[in-house]
Amino acid sequence: MASKERGLCLVYTGDGKGKTTASLGLAVRATGRGQRVLIVQFIKSPQRTYGEKIIFDKLGIEMHQTGVGFTWTKTPEEHREALKKAWAFTKEKVMSGQYDVVILDEIHNALSITKFPIDDVLPLQEVLELIENRPQGMHLILTGRSARKEVIEAADLVSEIKPIKHYYEEGIPAVKGLEF
Amino acid sequence: MASKERGLCLVYTGDGKGKTTASLGLAVRATGRGQRVLIVQFIKSPQRTYGEKIIFDKLGIEMHQTGVGFTWTKTPEEHREALKKAWAFTKEKVMSGQYDVVILDEIHNALSITKFPIDDVLPLQEVLELIENRPQGMHLILTGRSARKEVIEAADLVSEIKPIKHYYEEGIPAVKGLEF
Repeated sequence: MASKERGLCLVYTGDGKGKTTASLGLAVRATGRGQRVLIVQFIKSPQRTYGEKIIFDKLGIEMHQTGVGFTWTKTPEEHREALKKAWAFTKEKVMSGQYDVVILDEIHNALSITKFPIDDVLPLQEVLELIENRPQGMHLILTGRSARKEVIEAADLVSEIKPIKHYYEEGIPAVKGLEF
Repeated sequence: MASKERGLCLVYTGDGKGKTTASLGLAVRATGRGQRVLIVQFIKSPQRTYGEKIIFDKLGIEMHQTGVGFTWTKTPEEHREALKKAWAFTKEKVMSGQYDVVILDEIHNALSITKFPIDDVLPLQEVLELIENRPQGMHLILTGRSARKEVIEAADLVSEIKPIKHYYEEGIPAVKGLEF
């Protein structure tokens, strides 16, 4: 244990584009170095297809979409149920010792939901404990808007991505290949 | 031509971690959608190995490291020579019509070099013309610190990545798999 390098906890947050995408770049880089990577997506739903999933399947990068979409598309109960399962799954996977890099995509969004109570299905305290108690040497990357200050405090690196300009404002919708 | 969707120009800038990494994520996503991707890296040198290069070679994503490292590692003349070649190469590749997505990694750093004159080897005006005149439908992504305001004006989307916290401050050096 003592000989293994310390794993790092990275946070990508902010309202700008590039948080999930940066974590996907890290997944590729780590895979290139022979590291075992797991990606759990907390909001994205397996009902949709994503360009990155097509490649990650080819590369053998494990990616799970555990969400049901954003909060306005489903009932609170559907979200709670999905988050409960996602969190149980995540804890088991992280603690299994099978991974060198784990990405929890859009977990910050999930942790900052206020439209319904989530603390019984995804408790902040348990997330902090997971960061603290994860296997030695594991890098943990948490992405999403509105990262909680307790998570920022627990992290080693925090990047805030700010939107300076966005083409949504010009009426251009999400672009295939760039955004999904 | 007219039937083809408009390509977008994206800028990732700022002093935080995640700019290059986000562009690598986009490269993977676009490749998953069957798009042809080119990456030209303006500062990184082919002398070093990178985790992403190992994977991109496998995936057939074209990636060229045209730099000689950062400005403090080489003479001004070596940098000028490398940038001159990199820029001639980039113009030819972009205008060839062979790519759907082109990433110019760390070009903002190159454009904001002040230690030696670069305007005769990498003129800002030509970069703006390339953004303007690139093939219809091509997405162009420009990354790096200190993006010039003229480039920001020409872009459709600009994300600024701000460092909130960084483990360099704790004396931890660059981490293999995460950063290279």
